[in-house]
Amino acid sequence: MSNVTLQTLLARYKKGTLTEAELLRSLPEQMFESLGFATVDHHREIRQGFPEVIFCQGKTPDQVAQIARAIVRRKSILLATRADRRHYAAVHRIIRSARYNAVARTILANAHLVKQRGLGTILIVTAGTSDIPVAEEARVTAEALGNTTDRLFDVGVAGIHRILMQSKKLRAARIIIVVAGMEGALASVVGGMVSVPVIAVPTSVGYGASFRGISSLLGMLNSCAAGVTVVNIDNGFGAGYAAARMNRARD
Amino acid sequence: MSNVTLQTLLARYKKGTLTEAELLRSLPEQMFESLGFATVDHHREIRQGFPEVIFCQGKTPDQVAQIARAIVRRKSILLATRADRRHYAAVHRIIRSARYNAVARTILANAHLVKQRGLGTILIVTAGTSDIPVAEEARVTAEALGNTTDRLFDVGVAGIHRILMQSKKLRAARIIIVVAGMEGALASVVGGMVSVPVIAVPTSVGYGASFRGISSLLGMLNSCAAGVTVVNIDNGFGAGYAAARMNRARD
Amino acid sequence: MSNVTLQTLLARYKKGTLTEAELLRSLPEQMFESLGFATVDHHREIRQGFPEVIFCQGKTPDQVAQIARAIVRRKSILLATRADRRHYAAVHRIIRSARYNAVARTILANAHLVKQRGLGTILIVTAGTSDIPVAEEARVTAEALGNTTDRLFDVGVAGIHRILMQSKKLRAARIIIVVAGMEGALASVVGGMVSVPVIAVPTSVGYGASFRGISSLLGMLNSCAAGVTVVNIDNGFGAGYAAARMNRARD
Amino acid sequence: MSNVTLQTLLARYKKGTLTEAELLRSLPEQMFESLGFATVDHHREIRQGFPEVIFCQGKTPDQVAQIARAIVRRKSILLATRADRRHYAAVHRIIRSARYNAVARTILANAHLVKQRGLGTILIVTAGTSDIPVAEEARVTAEALGNTTDRLFDVGVAGIHRILMQSKKLRAARIIIVVAGMEGALASVVGGMVSVPVIAVPTSVGYGASFRGISSLLGMLNSCAAGVTVVNIDNGFGAGYAAARMNRARD
Amino acid sequence: MSNVTLQTLLARYKKGTLTEAELLRSLPEQMFESLGFATVDHHREIRQGFPEVIFCQGKTPDQVAQIARAIVRRKSILLATRADRRHYAAVHRIIRSARYNAVARTILANAHLVKQRGLGTILIVTAGTSDIPVAEEARVTAEALGNTTDRLFDVGVAGIHRILMQSKKLRAARIIIVVAGMEGALASVVGGMVSVPVIAVPTSVGYGASFRGISSLLGMLNSCAAGVTVVNIDNGFGAGYAAARMNRARD
Amino acid sequence: MSNVTLQTLLARYKKGTLTEAELLRSLPEQMFESLGFATVDHHREIRQGFPEVIFCQGKTPDQVAQIARAIVRRKSILLATRADRRHYAAVHRIIRSARYNAVARTILANAHLVKQRGLGTILIVTAGTSDIPVAEEARVTAEALGNTTDRLFDVGVAGIHRILMQSKKLRAARIIIVVAGMEGALASVVGGMVSVPVIAVPTSVGYGASFRGISSLLGMLNSCAAGVTVVNIDNGFGAGYAAARMNRARD
Amino acid sequence: MSNVTLQTLLARYKKGTLTEAELLRSLPEQMFESLGFATVDHHREIRQGFPEVIFCQGKTPDQVAQIARAIVRRKSILLATRADRRHYAAVHRIIRSARYNAVARTILANAHLVKQRGLGTILIVTAGTSDIPVAEEARVTAEALGNTTDRLFDVGVAGIHRILMQSKKLRAARIIIVVAGMEGALASVVGGMVSVPVIAVPTSVGYGASFRGISSLLGMLNSCAAGVTVVNIDNGFGAGYAAARMNRARD
Amino acid sequence: MSNVTLQTLLARYKKGTLTEAELLRSLPEQMFESLGFATVDHHREIRQGFPEVIFCQGKTPDQVAQIARAIVRRKSILLATRADRRHYAAVHRIIRSARYNAVARTILANAHLVKQRGLGTILIVTAGTSDIPVAEEARVTAEALGNTTDRLFDVGVAGIHRILMQSKKLRAARIIIVVAGMEGALASVVGGMVSVPVIAVPTSVGYGASFRGISSLLGMLNSCAAGVTVVNIDNGFGAGYAAARMNRARD
Repeated sequence: MSNVTLQTLLARYKKGTLTEAELLRSLPEQMFESLGFATVDHHREIRQGFPEVIFCQGKTPDQVAQIARAIVRRKSILLATRADRRHYAAVHRIIRSARYNAVARTILANAHLVKQRGLGTILIVTAGTSDIPVAEEARVTAEALGNTTDRLFDVGVAGIHRILMQSKKLRAARIIIVVAGMEGALASVVGGMVSVPVIAVPTSVGYGASFRGISSLLGMLNSCAAGVTVVNIDNGFGAGYAAARMNRARD
Repeated sequence: MSNVTLQTLLARYKKGTLTEAELLRSLPEQMFESLGFATVDHHREIRQGFPEVIFCQGKTPDQVAQIARAIVRRKSILLATRADRRHYAAVHRIIRSARYNAVARTILANAHLVKQRGLGTILIVTAGTSDIPVAEEARVTAEALGNTTDRLFDVGVAGIHRILMQSKKLRAARIIIVVAGMEGALASVVGGMVSVPVIAVPTSVGYGASFRGISSLLGMLNSCAAGVTVVNIDNGFGAGYAAARMNRARD
Repeated sequence: MSNVTLQTLLARYKKGTLTEAELLRSLPEQMFESLGFATVDHHREIRQGFPEVIFCQGKTPDQVAQIARAIVRRKSILLATRADRRHYAAVHRIIRSARYNAVARTILANAHLVKQRGLGTILIVTAGTSDIPVAEEARVTAEALGNTTDRLFDVGVAGIHRILMQSKKLRAARIIIVVAGMEGALASVVGGMVSVPVIAVPTSVGYGASFRGISSLLGMLNSCAAGVTVVNIDNGFGAGYAAARMNRARD
Repeated sequence: MSNVTLQTLLARYKKGTLTEAELLRSLPEQMFESLGFATVDHHREIRQGFPEVIFCQGKTPDQVAQIARAIVRRKSILLATRADRRHYAAVHRIIRSARYNAVARTILANAHLVKQRGLGTILIVTAGTSDIPVAEEARVTAEALGNTTDRLFDVGVAGIHRILMQSKKLRAARIIIVVAGMEGALASVVGGMVSVPVIAVPTSVGYGASFRGISSLLGMLNSCAAGVTVVNIDNGFGAGYAAARMNRARD
Repeated sequence: MSNVTLQTLLARYKKGTLTEAELLRSLPEQMFESLGFATVDHHREIRQGFPEVIFCQGKTPDQVAQIARAIVRRKSILLATRADRRHYAAVHRIIRSARYNAVARTILANAHLVKQRGLGTILIVTAGTSDIPVAEEARVTAEALGNTTDRLFDVGVAGIHRILMQSKKLRAARIIIVVAGMEGALASVVGGMVSVPVIAVPTSVGYGASFRGISSLLGMLNSCAAGVTVVNIDNGFGAGYAAARMNRARD
Repeated sequence: MSNVTLQTLLARYKKGTLTEAELLRSLPEQMFESLGFATVDHHREIRQGFPEVIFCQGKTPDQVAQIARAIVRRKSILLATRADRRHYAAVHRIIRSARYNAVARTILANAHLVKQRGLGTILIVTAGTSDIPVAEEARVTAEALGNTTDRLFDVGVAGIHRILMQSKKLRAARIIIVVAGMEGALASVVGGMVSVPVIAVPTSVGYGASFRGISSLLGMLNSCAAGVTVVNIDNGFGAGYAAARMNRARD
Repeated sequence: MSNVTLQTLLARYKKGTLTEAELLRSLPEQMFESLGFATVDHHREIRQGFPEVIFCQGKTPDQVAQIARAIVRRKSILLATRADRRHYAAVHRIIRSARYNAVARTILANAHLVKQRGLGTILIVTAGTSDIPVAEEARVTAEALGNTTDRLFDVGVAGIHRILMQSKKLRAARIIIVVAGMEGALASVVGGMVSVPVIAVPTSVGYGASFRGISSLLGMLNSCAAGVTVVNIDNGFGAGYAAARMNRARD
Repeated sequence: MSNVTLQTLLARYKKGTLTEAELLRSLPEQMFESLGFATVDHHREIRQGFPEVIFCQGKTPDQVAQIARAIVRRKSILLATRADRRHYAAVHRIIRSARYNAVARTILANAHLVKQRGLGTILIVTAGTSDIPVAEEARVTAEALGNTTDRLFDVGVAGIHRILMQSKKLRAARIIIVVAGMEGALASVVGGMVSVPVIAVPTSVGYGASFRGISSLLGMLNSCAAGVTVVNIDNGFGAGYAAARMNRARD
């Protein structure tokens, strides 16, 4: 019975083909599935509207594949981040429809289950070309969570008119994700130009005193533009997920 | 003519009591007013729906008072943060209706101009009692920006049932601000319980290896709950402002 | 006479087959054996109830093998940590019964000498799947030191009910080791749920502002749960050893 | 009814003077008492065998006094740490029996309720004289939690024989707390001499490159003595509490 | 003879009123004057075109006064930085013409000796009002070194049009000093708008994760605008001096 | 029309072969060319007198090649820094005249377009032999920007006479770039010897407590020689560019 | 008997006025005297040729006075460092001959007991005037330990000839202590000029990115001059003591 | 004439086979030899009694070989540190007698020129086996500089009696080098046991919060044993060189 979703169980209970006792016995297992090395949080989809996302870094390809199977079995969308080619190979072996995005380093399956839920467009802006992989992780995540996105790449502040000329695109967005390394100044400039939420993603792009992203992280945390919020260095996934939280209508 | 708002100017232009040439000549001064030591950004209200907020720390009481006067003159709401009693005294001398909140360290004037614009309630949660000043700064800011707020104080994770028992209040909120010092773990727990945006505010509460807020800042940036965003240490203002950005309907 | 334990010497002295002079002459060599590049502390077994454990990192395979031989010769349990496959190969060449645990990166020999001494069960909990190698090092160490262990993996706070549903298992433990990377919040939650000793092990799991484990280390040091103690980042061995110290009856 | 302990309620329920409905209605309030600015965790005494301890730093004297009253009302032991004289004055005004320890910076009331529960002696050792305030905080905490303590002050490793001559005292202890600033080396030396649990407390004693306790914190985390555990810088309270956890018989 | 400048000596030697032997004997003392606690580098004026500047911080008022006297005696311009009122009082007691600038915290005497030498205008720009004291230190220094300056205050990037509207003033400058705290982004924006040298001065303005100026320092060092150079945090003096170096015609 | 420079367009407009409407339509595209992953800032040449320089690190060889083509098409000088051999191979495939400097890690094309514009010689000094790659990046940059350079290598302060003996070469320079790792002391010594601008480049040369260049970065920022300015660690490009800014005559 | 030195006891034992049993009973108390809050290491004088030095910071005036009395009672030299005026007052009350050095912040008594033991002169050099308090602590310490000293103040590298002109004084020294803040470059220059031991003392002189002495500490640790050794920031005492160790003839 | 030492030149001058003019012309080249990429400091041997030592890290094999040739040509001892096998191969190709020490990573040639100059024995002590490579670098350096050495390996403080039992060896030394990673406590223990100079070398041995040697570096800088001096992390060369400075008789 393990590959049946909670929804199915409840439907069968309503129809009378499942007794209350049977329903109650199944609940914990429906909510949290133990794989020994992992406790998959199937309840998350009910709580947060999206199933658990697999963070592949530090997991073996086999572990990732087993968690992926547990998710797909329940007919949920599968999103895995920080996946390298070996992770993908292991997942692909058992989920043939899984697709790999080499720039974003993501694995996606059951994409047809994505339902459009966003209230507006999420615009993803980068300061430079090297910031694109992080931006793409944000985009894939936001889209998997049912949002429409747009992009604006390589418009860093050293040529300030590049971003100023795009004020129309900026104003069309309901949420803006700014991805920048080095001094991360683009977040402050964009934050001061618009009234919508701005999520800043520092990247580890740079060298020397950028200290693998600390310079842009601190720059963004200290932004003189009011109300810019920040996620972890290189955390495109977190930015995409936060944007999805903000872009959702309250039920 | 300096204490006339842009709106008035435009109305007079429409009525014909102001020529186009006169209008154009007045525009720059309406947008950015130079006080010598400060360039007040009156255009911000048009761009972002809220006038410039005065960050008092590092400014002399006299400088704060002069900027405050320039803002109030244009019939805008006045909000000043990180104000100490000397700042307040200087402001109060020229703006008798200004009010001081000693816990939040804010000065507020023209509060009657606040228009309710938020789509839902902003809930402000603290891990401990010592986090309250930062939480209050967030609350005052969010309310000045036209939002309804609610509070939940001292529900840190060392007694996990305190927050769990409040799941109803958490679910009633449209946006949640979590204010916590020490290890900042409350942001992760709340972030995992709800689907709405969670803004984490690390505080400098703690000692020793809390390093004046670095421990909670890092904890929040590395939150295992997806899509939690973070502002600067002790930045209640930023959290309130970010929440206001998120809580606004797109026009 | 070098591969004879101190106990044997004392027994022979008591029986009269060893003179006092002979005994005294043998003592230093029984306590500290010099291998030139290493001074093996055989006295540790008497002082602390367990022989020296070999920390392989930074040692050549040959050095590890020679120290291992000196320990096994005295009929002591051999435990080596942070061992890679080349260390194991060198040890295995001279101690055929040695066993390698690839996840925990430990080498174990003379395991039959382990005596059960623990007063209760040591429970090892991880926040995520990537924390397992460190958890396994703790488990192998605790068991080599004569303790019974139990495990609970991947119950991080982003899905707080995963750990709450396990309160029975938590209450059954006499000592709990919490292994967590990222923000390390699990230690605070567990620390607040139980009254037994909680040992927190920060791991280097994470990226960006986790700074290879600093975020969880600081989180755990600043835990708002009273009386949680902490070991070095990724130090599963230290946690297992500390748990064994705590789990021992005083003679 | 608020100043009645949970135990009393249950007794009355058993006797029949309280209905089940009345009991259930009273439970939440018995467990968590909201003071607006604080949510007192009265349930902690049941969960962990000791009531909530008040961390005074960052709280106003009035807030501390109100929390103190809520605790004492329930006939629990009151322990407050990091209390300055103003905190004490406020508490003393409403709890006349409260006592202040100026070295440890603690407030204690209802000390007659302390029940001896420790299995053995907790020995508190300091490297220097300047470490004594932290050591005293540990001692007061451990004793409030029902333990017997002993002390050994100013036996740092620069005169290694001072600690070596005390090996008898070290061996008599069931748990040892080592308090040291500067390089914190004493923890390693003691950790290598005994088989019982060693809790290391780094202090901010030192200057220059001690960086307010970082040097001893890092020294203790990297101790070459196996199984030494560490608490936050200057966290005597945490050390005393951890020792109490370890010194308790499992029920 | 000690209060005679080197120039006078050489003139007298040329005229024949001083023998070669007398000249040579006087030289070392003319170049470096020992006051016991200080070795005044009078030769610096010859080497660098400006006498030694007194850095008052860490010196007693009396020490500052004695060094000041040694400089003024040689008919050199006196500039002292980081001077508090007690330093000024001590200097003023012996040099009545000395003037104190309370914002810049500088003491100046013999200002009539300043010769205009700069090739163009040095423009000093600040991001905020709180950056003004550092900007003023830069201005006083640059002017004491014979340069013409201009100012543009409080034009930070959160209101990007404030700086864009000033492009004429920016283009009129031969060298630009950008003074900014928080994220320090203004240096990148200005650096990208002009082709003249841009000297960035990070300030300690900010709080929390600004870490007393580290955020702006790192932001400026990692500026994406090519060829921006940086001085120490709050080092207005250094920026003014560097600008003077750049603004000088090569002889 | 895309590979025509702005200058050509304006000439054609003047001649009458291009209408005003056509000119205006072409302008944005002439200023900022979008390649999807990059927004090339062709306007920079007009604004700053030099086209955009490609920072190769973090870009794919193909991205670098496409940006390079866009620059060369407009008959601009191509300079690419931090280029490895794979970047060069991709560029060379489409720009056969491009040349690679393996020590400086730069790619250069259209070098014949370089116009001598510097007012004097830029001297590049290194403390050690290991600093040469950074020094070479500075030299290549300065020369590509139209400057004459000179070099002085391995004259670190441990043998102070090496630099003292070169005072003639130091005095002949109009701007001096000092490249040094380890303690970076050479910048202070040179800064004190000359009156011209000194740009200090910290390098990551060193080990242990040099922390990949932090030691020299801090040393240079804290230089006791007045008016030394600093660029990022290993930022030879930035130093060369800054020197070019300083060495230009004002029009 | 407690105020009798070990030497006296042994003399009396030799003379026969003290039995062997009496002698042995007195030994421990002669070596380590417990004052409750302190364990005075009287044996240090025998082991290291100098009695324990009191580090006053963090000790109460009363504690310092009691330790001082215990030392003076044994007719040893008393040296106390980091003493403020309150410490001195308490000591002076019971040891009338004690003398306070306000610059070095030291207390000295029984100075007549100092025996000249150094092989040569210890030269103490400072980069600036603000480094003098640390230099004086070094000088007082070295002299109390029986050495001859010389001084050279304010000869930092920004005016490199100041130190070069003193090469005779440098060559006359047997050991050189270099005291410098900011970038600490003087240690490298001196280290390269002489062949005798050079002890570098970083000071907290500076501001901004000097990070209270980190810049000079790192500069000195990374000195390109071979064989320079370093002590803690502002640790004049340690430098003086180390110099004394080096300046002693081996017995 | 370039491969003739300064001594030879002076001898020839005395004999009259070299004129004064010829001598003076040759001097600079004899003191500092320019190889383009390096300025070899031949004068160092005169100044410090030992020729320049080649620090190979960051230099190409070819650069090392050329500098080596310049040194050997002048009949000086060649010592190169941080040499890998490729450096050695390049040196060996032109100096067949050069010898490589793979543990210490040193190259040595002209070892027959070493003259015994040390006043006593330099003892090199390590806390663990992994510290040996650094200890060997110290030993090779000290011996190349004409000193006698002794060793004591793996006597860390976790088994304190290992070092206590060696007090005789410790007392026999004139200078002691203590090499230790992790918490570096051995330096304090040894520093407190002896009166001779103790040079502490922190190593990068450890993991997690050892931060590549920061823990032991800080531990040693904060040593509670008076007068311990410290060199850079892993700087065995510096320790050996410093010991040689200390062990030399003053001429």
